[in-house]
Amino acid sequence: MSQHLVLASASPQRKQLLEGLGLTFEVHPSHFDESQCDLPDPAKRAQYLAYHKAETVNKEYPDSYVIGCDTLVVSSTGELLEKAPDAEAARAMIAKLSGNTAEVHSGLSVVDPEQKHHEGVSSSVVTFKTLTEEEMDWWIGTGLWKDRSGSFQIDGPGQLMIENISGDWSSVVGLPVYLLGDLLRKAGYHLMQ
Amino acid sequence: MSQHLVLASASPQRKQLLEGLGLTFEVHPSHFDESQCDLPDPAKRAQYLAYHKAETVNKEYPDSYVIGCDTLVVSSTGELLEKAPDAEAARAMIAKLSGNTAEVHSGLSVVDPEQKHHEGVSSSVVTFKTLTEEEMDWWIGTGLWKDRSGSFQIDGPGQLMIENISGDWSSVVGLPVYLLGDLLRKAGYHLMQ
Repeated sequence: MSQHLVLASASPQRKQLLEGLGLTFEVHPSHFDESQCDLPDPAKRAQYLAYHKAETVNKEYPDSYVIGCDTLVVSSTGELLEKAPDAEAARAMIAKLSGNTAEVHSGLSVVDPEQKHHEGVSSSVVTFKTLTEEEMDWWIGTGLWKDRSGSFQIDGPGQLMIENISGDWSSVVGLPVYLLGDLLRKAGYHLMQ
Repeated sequence: MSQHLVLASASPQRKQLLEGLGLTFEVHPSHFDESQCDLPDPAKRAQYLAYHKAETVNKEYPDSYVIGCDTLVVSSTGELLEKAPDAEAARAMIAKLSGNTAEVHSGLSVVDPEQKHHEGVSSSVVTFKTLTEEEMDWWIGTGLWKDRSGSFQIDGPGQLMIENISGDWSSVVGLPVYLLGDLLRKAGYHLMQ
């Protein structure tokens, strides 16, 4: 069976994590319309979107193993934290996260060449330091909040705002590597050889 | 006060983690003789070695902030797992870790320009998959076990052998970033500005 692997995501962080595992793959972002999903539960929503992203790309690569992922950030009050449109919105998000926690849910789906899905979700809790006004100014000034759900990052200077992660670090970055290893093995992809 | 930062370690993984935080620093490995330490408790030993590595380099950079670190890996039977001298020894170590856990202790010490030490230790538990003979052959064949305590890695293809980490991922790589942020702040180093 083919051992061709496709990552159905445009995220540079996911690409880097997958490269870190030493795997060879192709990137083909999915254009699944996320507004089609009205599931309120964030873990189920991440799972649903991961499934459909993989499914969409699988149509173009039916003989490959296709990885779909979706990562959602939820505040401690249950609010979905998406990408901030501007610096003001990003600062408001960070002010909410300061001294608080956020839940991160990464859904993952691997479609195998027999069109079978292998799925899972990895959930983590991120605890933020209590930030001073100067520290929030610094963060917004770095511009690193751009294009990040929740306006924070875990793989660069943004780590300085974090006190603790409970769960899988790679899952918070956007691709839970242990879960992925598991799903690829179940899908029959030849890992570690 | 000076804001010059020195990393007292030759480890490329630690250098990369520190760069990831966006900090500017100089690398100056310590030549402290580790055989001078006879503490059996691994967390205390890691702490002691981190202290003395920082202390040694501080002599040459008395006006800087100097970071000393030491990471120790201990098997579930309490055996200290050092770097394997050859492939045979590495395979024996991995065979012991297969389906088992290891404790990783990363000691950290920051000396400030007033020669005061700020210290801590971050301990994590790594759980390994049960590996087949083929998977162990694959791992030894990659050569990536070289120069790694315990003959495994957590920041590359070696992640595929791991089922779970409880603790801080960066601490298992060799430099606990949240603890470091904490110690640098206590030392008076200007972070996030």
